[in-house]
Amino acid sequence: MKLIREDIVSDIRLRVESVRRNMQQMQMDAVLIASNANIFYTTGRFFRGYVYISADNMPVWFVVRPKGFEIGDDIIEIRKPELIPDELKKLGISMPGKIGFEYDDMTYSDIKRLEAIFPDSQSVNASPVIRKARMVKTPWEIDQMRFDGIHQAEVYRRIRHCYKEDMTDIEFQIEIEKTLRLEGCLGYIRTSGNLMEINMGSVIAGDNADAPGPYEFTMGGSGADPSLPVGANGTTIHRGETVMVDVCGAFNGYQTDMTRVWRLGEIPKLAYKAHECSRNIMRECEKIGLPGAKVSDLYEKALKIAEDEGLREYFMGHNQQAPFIGHGVGIQLNELPVVTSRSRDILEGNMTIALEPKFVIPHVGAVGIENTYVVTASGLECITVFPEEIQEL
Amino acid sequence: MKLIREDIVSDIRLRVESVRRNMQQMQMDAVLIASNANIFYTTGRFFRGYVYISADNMPVWFVVRPKGFEIGDDIIEIRKPELIPDELKKLGISMPGKIGFEYDDMTYSDIKRLEAIFPDSQSVNASPVIRKARMVKTPWEIDQMRFDGIHQAEVYRRIRHCYKEDMTDIEFQIEIEKTLRLEGCLGYIRTSGNLMEINMGSVIAGDNADAPGPYEFTMGGSGADPSLPVGANGTTIHRGETVMVDVCGAFNGYQTDMTRVWRLGEIPKLAYKAHECSRNIMRECEKIGLPGAKVSDLYEKALKIAEDEGLREYFMGHNQQAPFIGHGVGIQLNELPVVTSRSRDILEGNMTIALEPKFVIPHVGAVGIENTYVVTASGLECITVFPEEIQEL
Repeated sequence: MKLIREDIVSDIRLRVESVRRNMQQMQMDAVLIASNANIFYTTGRFFRGYVYISADNMPVWFVVRPKGFEIGDDIIEIRKPELIPDELKKLGISMPGKIGFEYDDMTYSDIKRLEAIFPDSQSVNASPVIRKARMVKTPWEIDQMRFDGIHQAEVYRRIRHCYKEDMTDIEFQIEIEKTLRLEGCLGYIRTSGNLMEINMGSVIAGDNADAPGPYEFTMGGSGADPSLPVGANGTTIHRGETVMVDVCGAFNGYQTDMTRVWRLGEIPKLAYKAHECSRNIMRECEKIGLPGAKVSDLYEKALKIAEDEGLREYFMGHNQQAPFIGHGVGIQLNELPVVTSRSRDILEGNMTIALEPKFVIPHVGAVGIENTYVVTASGLECITVFPEEIQEL
Repeated sequence: MKLIREDIVSDIRLRVESVRRNMQQMQMDAVLIASNANIFYTTGRFFRGYVYISADNMPVWFVVRPKGFEIGDDIIEIRKPELIPDELKKLGISMPGKIGFEYDDMTYSDIKRLEAIFPDSQSVNASPVIRKARMVKTPWEIDQMRFDGIHQAEVYRRIRHCYKEDMTDIEFQIEIEKTLRLEGCLGYIRTSGNLMEINMGSVIAGDNADAPGPYEFTMGGSGADPSLPVGANGTTIHRGETVMVDVCGAFNGYQTDMTRVWRLGEIPKLAYKAHECSRNIMRECEKIGLPGAKVSDLYEKALKIAEDEGLREYFMGHNQQAPFIGHGVGIQLNELPVVTSRSRDILEGNMTIALEPKFVIPHVGAVGIENTYVVTASGLECITVFPEEIQEL
C-alpha cells in the first residue's frame, strides 16, 4: 500500500514550496505539522503522524497510524513523536535553530509535548505560515474545488424536488442531505477551531433566520436542540416566508460554499429588493476582486451598496449582525482571508473565497446568495454556477 | 431570552459540585472553562464564552456570543476574555492563586491568551479534572442517554428496511442516515481531540472492515475518499459478507454508541462463532462491571475469552488491532474511561461506557456488537436494547 499519491506529487511540491517561502519570511528553519488539515494539505493524505518540513531537505513523513504503508527514506513509521529527532539524525538532518509548531491548531498539551522533543530549538507559531500558504490554491486544488462546485450545483438543481407541502425545515433539510450524499458528498464539514459545529449545513426558514447563535456562521438559526444551536429548528415552512439553503459542498477533501433562497408563495417587495441588492454586491465584488485589491475593499463596497439601498439594518443579520461578508474556503470551511473591514490581506490570483452578502427581513426570513470564487486576473470567477433568483418551492 | 435552563438547575449544581471536588483534590482555586463540550456540561447551554468556577462562589458565565440573553449577577456579557478579571473584582471574587485551563481541549494560542489574563496566578491543566467529573453522569444526563438509546434502537429496528438488493455500502448508509435524522438524530457526532473525524457513523461491509485507518475507531474502513478515510468505501454488498452498522446515537447533546451486524446470505461458521464470542464477552463484562471493579479487568476478561476461543488473531481487527474494547460516552463519543489493559480507572456507579468487543473475519467482514451501559450496583445495565444476533438483510 503506497502512501504517496503519485498523481499529485508535483502539486504537493508546489504546496511545500509555498510553505517554505512563508517559513523563510519568518526565518523558521523547520515546521513540524501535526493537524489533520495541514497533514492533508502537505501530503494529500490523512494519516495520524507528523510532517517535518525544513528549508533544504525533502519533507519527512512520520506515520503513527495506520501501519503497513510502504516506507522509504522520507516515509518513516514511528510509535511516538519523541522518536523524531533520532530519525532526523539518521537522515543527516540537523536540529533546527527555530522550529514552528501549529499553535492555533493543536492543543496546549500537544504543543508542550512537541516542544519538549526539541529542547534546544526556539519554538514559534507555524499556524499563520501554513494558513497563509493554503490561502492561495494550487492548480490541483482548484480542480478539486471546481469539481465540488459542479456537484454542489447539481444538488441545488434538485432542491425544489426535495420539498413537499407542510414539511418542516428539518424534514426539508433531511431530503436535501440525502440528495447531497447520493451525489457523492462526504457529509462532513471540516472547520478550523471550536467556533463552528454543524452537520451537513443549514436550512433556515422564516424568522429562525433572526435567532442569534453562538457560532461564527453568518446566519444563526436556533437549531433543533439547545446542544447544537444552529440551523433548522423544526418549524413548518409557511407561505410568505423564505427558506435559505446553505449546505455542504464537500466531495473530495475540499469544499465549495453556496447559498440560494427559495420561497413559499409570495413574499414582500422588501425581500426581493434585498435579494437583488445581494446580487448587485456580488457583481461589484466580482469586478473589483482583482489580484492586488484589498480584501477590506470588498467588505466596504458591500456595506456601501447595502447602505445606499437603505438596507443597513437587515444586512448580515438583524438581531445580531455578522461583521464579515465572506471567507476563504478550501480544506476547511473557514480559511483566510476573512472578508471584513479589519482585514489587511491583499487578494492574490488563485485564492478561493466565498462571498455571502445576506439580509434578514423580519417575519419573512433570510435572502441573498453565496458563491465560491477563484481570484483571477480578470476578477472573481464563480465556481458555484446556479441561477441566483429567489425560486418558488 | 433566558440562558438558564430552569428545569435542570439542580442537575447543573451536581455537575459543578463534582468539578469542585476534583478541583480540591488538585488544590485548584478556580477553573476557567472555554471548550464547547465543557461549557455545555457546566451550563446545559452552548454559548461562546467562558465559565469561571471557584471553590466558594457561584459559577460565573461570561457570554461573548450570542448577545441578548438576560444577564444577572452570574451571567455577564463580555466582548473579550481580557475583561474577566475586572468583572470578577466587581463581584468581590479574589484572583485565584492556582487556576486551571483546559490544556487538552483548547489550542496553545487560546491557553497562552488566557494565561496572560491571569499573570499572577499559577496555571495548571484543568482538562483531567473536568474529564474525570464528566465520567460519572448525573441523573438528568443518564435520562438523556436513555432517551438516546431508545431512539437509536428504534432506528436499528428499521435498518433492515433500508437495504435494497445490489446496494453499495454508501447507499445503504445514506438510507440509514435519513432514518436516523427523521427519528430526531442531530446528525453531528461530537468528539474530543483531532483523532476522530466522521459524519454520522460507519457502515462497513466485507473486507473493508480490514482496511486500517488513521483514526481511533475500533474498525477502520477506507472511506469514500482519501480525505476522509473511515467507513463505507462504495463497495457493493456481496452475498456471504457481513455489514457492521455503527451509527450516530446523538439526539440531545448526549449520545449512545451501538453496533449491530447484518449479513447477506449465509456466512461461514467462524463468523457466527466470533459473533457469539462477542456476546459472551458482553455477558461476562455485564456481571463483573460493578462499582469498585478495575476498568482494565473488563479488557483482560474480554481478551481471555477471545483467546480461549482461539479467536485472538481476529479480535479488535485483523490487519490492525485496536488496543481497547470500549470507552466512556456522553457529550463526546470518546470519553473516559478507556477500556484497555493500561487503564487505572475504577468503575463507579453512573459511569456510562460503550463496550465493543468486535472481530474481523477475513473475506467475510466484521462481527460482534456494541452496547452502551450504565454502571449500577448490580453490574452493567444496557441502555441500547435491541436483538444482538446477526440478522439477515
